Amino acid sequence: MTSSFANSSQFTESSVLVVGSVALDSVKTPFGEFDDILGGSATYFSVAASFFSPVKVVAVVGSDFLEDHSDIFKRHNIDTDGLEYAEGKTFRWKGEYSPDMNEAHTLDTQLNVFETFKPQIPASYKTSGHVFLGNIDPELQLQVLEQIEGSPLVACDTMNFWIEGKIDALKRILSKVRILIINDQEVRMLAQETNLVIAAHKIMAMGPQILVVKRGEYGVLMFTGQSTFGVPAFPLEKVVDPTGAGDSFAGGFMGHLANYQHLTDDALRRAVIFGSVMASFNVEQFSLDGLSKLTRSDIDIRFKRFKDLTHFEPI
Amino acid sequence: MTSSFANSSQFTESSVLVVGSVALDSVKTPFGEFDDILGGSATYFSVAASFFSPVKVVAVVGSDFLEDHSDIFKRHNIDTDGLEYAEGKTFRWKGEYSPDMNEAHTLDTQLNVFETFKPQIPASYKTSGHVFLGNIDPELQLQVLEQIEGSPLVACDTMNFWIEGKIDALKRILSKVRILIINDQEVRMLAQETNLVIAAHKIMAMGPQILVVKRGEYGVLMFTGQSTFGVPAFPLEKVVDPTGAGDSFAGGFMGHLANYQHLTDDALRRAVIFGSVMASFNVEQFSLDGLSKLTRSDIDIRFKRFKDLTHFEPI
Repeated sequence: MTSSFANSSQFTESSVLVVGSVALDSVKTPFGEFDDILGGSATYFSVAASFFSPVKVVAVVGSDFLEDHSDIFKRHNIDTDGLEYAEGKTFRWKGEYSPDMNEAHTLDTQLNVFETFKPQIPASYKTSGHVFLGNIDPELQLQVLEQIEGSPLVACDTMNFWIEGKIDALKRILSKVRILIINDQEVRMLAQETNLVIAAHKIMAMGPQILVVKRGEYGVLMFTGQSTFGVPAFPLEKVVDPTGAGDSFAGGFMGHLANYQHLTDDALRRAVIFGSVMASFNVEQFSLDGLSKLTRSDIDIRFKRFKDLTHFEPI
Repeated sequence: MTSSFANSSQFTESSVLVVGSVALDSVKTPFGEFDDILGGSATYFSVAASFFSPVKVVAVVGSDFLEDHSDIFKRHNIDTDGLEYAEGKTFRWKGEYSPDMNEAHTLDTQLNVFETFKPQIPASYKTSGHVFLGNIDPELQLQVLEQIEGSPLVACDTMNFWIEGKIDALKRILSKVRILIINDQEVRMLAQETNLVIAAHKIMAMGPQILVVKRGEYGVLMFTGQSTFGVPAFPLEKVVDPTGAGDSFAGGFMGHLANYQHLTDDALRRAVIFGSVMASFNVEQFSLDGLSKLTRSDIDIRFKRFKDLTHFEPI
């Protein structure tokens, strides 16, 4: 399983550019309730990815975004040249989780500075070898891609809101990305097909060569055309706040891949495990607290525990 | 990971005794609708297990149970000395699945001959080394255990109906079985705990040394106290009828274990894979059609495909 992918490009530049939201979240789970805590897809992604490779963030915040909030980027050596400070308030999301933590109910979304956001990619970002388009308006995702030079490895996320409301722009993005990372409900909705395997094939016909299906507490399935890979989520005694799990996954996944010049099945499978490791740490605490104090050794130990979790002897 | 379990008994006799239902099912799924087709927990279990070890079935059928129906037991060399023919009609279940096949809605249950069933274990069955107590009234499960000699490896299944209605008898059974095989909703209901890992520990404190958690299309988690093992379900393009998936799993699982004189972590993990293989074949067709024409080679090939599905290189 060391084969490279056909038409495999070379991704020589090892940094990861991420565009997405930086947010102030108000979150209620059975384990607590916090207002205006740091969140957002670009935040979770970039902190998770920073343990594996250099990260450059593109996002917008408002004048209420304090030095305390931005400290986390500095502490993880995340390049914030692309973090725009705009007049107004930072994007806000308010949500509450069901008792089993499998579902988030959005109580309020305030776009604020995101409403007029036009992502500007700094010159120093344009040659990034790896790009992650976080879950934002697919038209903004397209604007970002247009500003990137070369042929980076591009992965993207999306959600039901864009599948329903912006399917044309979304399909344009899908024709331009190599990897799509979404959850199983989104897979079924996008493909209009209940069988996940058939749905995966339909989506891969829209463009992405690789489809990574996030299944929450049940883990991840990855379809690459060459093979299918599946792993359960790490069984945890303490799941405190699932917010950001998907972006933490994507951060570990892309951060690991940024160490490779070519995509291989081995690298992709390990990337799924590192992504699952980062998601598992993230949900153990609120906000970025599950990720921010990790060491690379913590991560590698949990990677090995994934091996213990899934290994069986052949016949 | 070749360690034996502490206080590990020796299970020298390699046959598996199963007690459960033999039923005539009426099933509707998005792929078709059939009336009075062969089903029942003991049927699915025994056919699945028969590919791995000798099987002895204990169940009751009515005078409407035809030679055509019982042929499948003969063809798989399943011992039917414990299959009682009673006056009246065979147990009937009628159900319909949701479009995504994840949920079965029971439309009708007719206990019929099962209503007065008192399982009688034939003398030739009493020294079975391995026993599976299918999902029936826990008081009947207790009656079966009382008739068994020696110290076989005992596994059992149950359901929400017994957890709600017969919790005392169920707890008596749990204190006597080594392995419990139930689904994740049943785990949470039995433990009165939403976190699956904590729930597993609570249930293991009730008796079972090993808890196997079935998660439908998401696969299986097994807690042994020594380790936790997880595997996704086999991704299938064609899921036609999920009826009997859990019992087919249990059949592959126990059938494989019957080849070992001691429980080891390796054997248990492989048993989970063989169980998952049998469940995956079962759901591809209605009734027993997915299992009945298999060869051992088909089974071993899919076992290897599970290795391809889940393998990743260590770091």
